[in-house]
Amino acid sequence: MPGTFGPTAKTRLRRRPQRGFYDEESVFRVLDAAVIGHVGYAIDGEPFVTPTGYWRHGRRLYWHASAQSRMYQVQSACIAACVAVSILDGFIVARSGFHHSIQYRSVMAFGRTRPVEGRAAKRQAMDAFIARLYPGRPSEMRAINDSEIDAIGVIGMEIDEASAKIRTGGVEDEPADYALPCWAGVVPIRTVVGNAVPDGRLLVDPARPPSLSLYEENAALDEVLLRAARAG
Amino acid sequence: MPGTFGPTAKTRLRRRPQRGFYDEESVFRVLDAAVIGHVGYAIDGEPFVTPTGYWRHGRRLYWHASAQSRMYQVQSACIAACVAVSILDGFIVARSGFHHSIQYRSVMAFGRTRPVEGRAAKRQAMDAFIARLYPGRPSEMRAINDSEIDAIGVIGMEIDEASAKIRTGGVEDEPADYALPCWAGVVPIRTVVGNAVPDGRLLVDPARPPSLSLYEENAALDEVLLRAARAG
Repeated sequence: MPGTFGPTAKTRLRRRPQRGFYDEESVFRVLDAAVIGHVGYAIDGEPFVTPTGYWRHGRRLYWHASAQSRMYQVQSACIAACVAVSILDGFIVARSGFHHSIQYRSVMAFGRTRPVEGRAAKRQAMDAFIARLYPGRPSEMRAINDSEIDAIGVIGMEIDEASAKIRTGGVEDEPADYALPCWAGVVPIRTVVGNAVPDGRLLVDPARPPSLSLYEENAALDEVLLRAARAG
Repeated sequence: MPGTFGPTAKTRLRRRPQRGFYDEESVFRVLDAAVIGHVGYAIDGEPFVTPTGYWRHGRRLYWHASAQSRMYQVQSACIAACVAVSILDGFIVARSGFHHSIQYRSVMAFGRTRPVEGRAAKRQAMDAFIARLYPGRPSEMRAINDSEIDAIGVIGMEIDEASAKIRTGGVEDEPADYALPCWAGVVPIRTVVGNAVPDGRLLVDPARPPSLSLYEENAALDEVLLRAARAG
């Protein structure tokens, strides 16, 4: 269905349905605000979850590994996978233990893994990953050569089903508990960019290059990644 | 084996073995520096990865859900699971596409899920989660009552196998590439505590209570969580 992923039997939030979103825009806004995903799959029937950098193009997620790695070998056989992404936004400290909570944005995306095959397609995918993080970077750097591209395994996963689960807002205590002499509130959490550290052997201006212009010190990483995804 | 988890066939890093750690101290230092884990398991043979708050006691991980939730129902039957935790520390921007990388700390922990049963054990576990985040908090808040504790399902997982994978350090370019007129360096990423926002209906001093004393504005979250885990 264009513009939405569901909900489906796998993805429908049965409790607190107001926190579930199934439209592409909501799902993509979480996926594009992060860079590490947690890829769940099975090896010999046993669950594995591998944290790995990922990127998105349309409804497809990509990640890479060594072409010799167990993950790539297993996933290139087109198996079922679930990719989870989460962003921590804050802690909710309530008047009762029951209502302590976490502010977060998360996505669960389901599909089947497929290898990206051929040097041209793999190189294009890897450049897309780098450009998604650092818009324009492929034209600044030395291109990936053939022996390097042969050593990389790239996996793509069309998202068949997905949901975003988002918890915003503040303390939601039981009515009677507001009479308690107890502190309650929210502790916001932010993930921010630090001051870029140039490599010690640079032959060029140590200032950040154009591809890193979004990475200003103290910028919110989720916003940098969202903007880079739109520009890359 | 006391003090270490391995390595095992499941957890041994076959590539870049210098990034793999199997001792309890390394694994616990990553687990205790984060709060959201990604729990991988199967439902009807299909992989699921659910992002969820977790805590650790000894070699055991815990998380909770609604007692009515699909996750709790499935996991209370003692199934295999893999919990992945990751912390993003920075971006490595290299002179070649191949050597772009990410600084991170991650853990993969394997075990079998078991329900925590009985009100007393569940209440103790939930208070341990809150105290792990906010040392001393259980004595400040209204305790979890019986109907609340009955609505919560708590899962515990003894860690049978685990590895930490840690990438530190900076740019590692090919020797010839250092002659290129190309910027390279590291963009550090930090996750930090914001200024706590008191709830609008407080009857007490709006300043943070003792249980939140570690949550100073601009404190590094990983350090706050590590210190809280040691104190809680």
